[in-house]
Amino acid sequence: MSLQALIRDIKPIDEEARAAARDRQDRLTKPPQSLGRLEELSIQLAGITGQALPKLANKVILTMAGDHGVVAEGVSAFPQEVTEQMVLNFLRGGAAINALARHVGARVVVVDMGVAAHLEPQPGLVDKKVALGTQNMARGPAMTRKQATRALLAGAEVVEDELKKGLDILGVGEMGIANTTPSTAIAAVLSGIPADRLAGRGTGVDVAGLERKIGAIERALKVNHPDPTDALDVLAKVGGFEIGGMAGAMLAAAAHHRPVMVDGFISTAAALVAVGLAPQARPYLIASHCSQERGHRLMLEWLGLKPLFDLDMRLGEGTGAALGISLADAACKLLSEMATFDEAGVSGRA
Amino acid sequence: MSLQALIRDIKPIDEEARAAARDRQDRLTKPPQSLGRLEELSIQLAGITGQALPKLANKVILTMAGDHGVVAEGVSAFPQEVTEQMVLNFLRGGAAINALARHVGARVVVVDMGVAAHLEPQPGLVDKKVALGTQNMARGPAMTRKQATRALLAGAEVVEDELKKGLDILGVGEMGIANTTPSTAIAAVLSGIPADRLAGRGTGVDVAGLERKIGAIERALKVNHPDPTDALDVLAKVGGFEIGGMAGAMLAAAAHHRPVMVDGFISTAAALVAVGLAPQARPYLIASHCSQERGHRLMLEWLGLKPLFDLDMRLGEGTGAALGISLADAACKLLSEMATFDEAGVSGRA
Repeated sequence: MSLQALIRDIKPIDEEARAAARDRQDRLTKPPQSLGRLEELSIQLAGITGQALPKLANKVILTMAGDHGVVAEGVSAFPQEVTEQMVLNFLRGGAAINALARHVGARVVVVDMGVAAHLEPQPGLVDKKVALGTQNMARGPAMTRKQATRALLAGAEVVEDELKKGLDILGVGEMGIANTTPSTAIAAVLSGIPADRLAGRGTGVDVAGLERKIGAIERALKVNHPDPTDALDVLAKVGGFEIGGMAGAMLAAAAHHRPVMVDGFISTAAALVAVGLAPQARPYLIASHCSQERGHRLMLEWLGLKPLFDLDMRLGEGTGAALGISLADAACKLLSEMATFDEAGVSGRA
Repeated sequence: MSLQALIRDIKPIDEEARAAARDRQDRLTKPPQSLGRLEELSIQLAGITGQALPKLANKVILTMAGDHGVVAEGVSAFPQEVTEQMVLNFLRGGAAINALARHVGARVVVVDMGVAAHLEPQPGLVDKKVALGTQNMARGPAMTRKQATRALLAGAEVVEDELKKGLDILGVGEMGIANTTPSTAIAAVLSGIPADRLAGRGTGVDVAGLERKIGAIERALKVNHPDPTDALDVLAKVGGFEIGGMAGAMLAAAAHHRPVMVDGFISTAAALVAVGLAPQARPYLIASHCSQERGHRLMLEWLGLKPLFDLDMRLGEGTGAALGISLADAACKLLSEMATFDEAGVSGRA
């Protein structure tokens, strides 16, 4: 598979299925539009899947992990080893994403996109390691253009493999110490919003840490000159392996008419890359929540995505996506399972 | 059971269990507070249940139905017969609340608190009918003080019965054509906010209908002089049987240390009555969502409740409560199932 072929395969959503879902919503036993955004969501899901009554039986959450050379600039509150430790926690089922995925009936697929440690092969871990972490983007490109393409295609491959096992909706989350830093850089380049308006506390750096983070991003932009009209260049120069993997997974899901539930800040940076590469992928994306991480709301607005909820979360891993997937499933069940006024013998408006 | 005994049985929440839950949240494998409102919710649920690790296995949603004499004033977009028709729809499983309750694993208990039709006894329907609908509050009291007490105690009885079958969290919803009108009246009296700031379109009245509605509420307040310091008087004069039932159910749940998930506009009017009768019940209440119905946000603010989400819903039945119950369950599972830093061997902050 080439990146060009992947992008070319993403087609417009199905307007006929959308119209059928909208028509049915107006005949269900409730005042019109009284289910609010759940109605809109069901209609969008019909358009994405091409099914008038979409079913989201197989729910998959990708938790993609990678490390970042820019951690050397003192941009994170946690040490780099935590990326590997959390991958092991995911595989043992002890992380937040595991609890939430069990709650919503999703399976978690943990992908090593570029953790800076050699992980033993084990059940549940997909090895797509591009390298042992990126280079320090404050001093040069985070990765080569070839590695960026590799990361994108690896993400797409994971989706292709999961489709064989059943995948009706995809949630896209991550783990990677320091990865709000490249995410902020990506957002700054692609949206044109200054880095100091987008940068936040991540896992919890203090004021000095936030200043180091903004400084590192500004140096990365100055040193690398990423081209805002070339999302692949942006990913290579100031991105990350897990961010590339997430963007590739989003493109593959869109190409297969599967809805993508975007998670938080880093997942949205991946969405910016995906939409930068393939603007026609945007209607396949659903924003789960607005993160507490500063800048996320601006990124969502720039993408034209309205989040479903805001619970002051800022964890990543796919935790927001898991809850969003449950809402998408609820929206589809309402559309499919509710009786119409005719079926139920309920009178219409007086 | 007397109303006085019911109110007396509501005790403060358990500060020790709250503190234990808060302590555990800070040791789980995530940056502190990164699960945002889900952390706060888990801590509140620990306090309510008195369990450091609360479990919400048995989820119950009461959908309480009643009719309203004030429908004669032309305040609703739908005819009164829809209340009965929708009760039958609930019992057949074809309404929105049925689809959502199945989705979140809750059982729906449909209660006839005062539908203006004789309903055949049937499985799933609890008969607590106080009368065949209230009187027209625009011309006199909606019910007698005795009927108001009866409605409250009937709601409490339903909870007592459901507790025997297992009830770890209660959602409280309703169905009743015209019932945003008495709900607005209750809110106006108890909060002191003028009716014309609280009144909304309900199931979808037009501008003229909204004016009739505000007129009917203002006449009801003028004719009946409900006493804002006496919530039972307010319920009797400008309330409804299902609203009384919901308030009584909330009080009984609080008395048994069970969390109450408040639904939308009408459910919140019932919460105002419950808190008016027993201010110490408030910490047991959780606001699921902010309804599109005008005035709901003001009512929630007056109660000091912050809704978990806002999906532009305005259906009632318990639909918002169902989704809120799923979030509460998720919050408890995160608290119970996540590994601590020590257990997972994950490093803390650098």
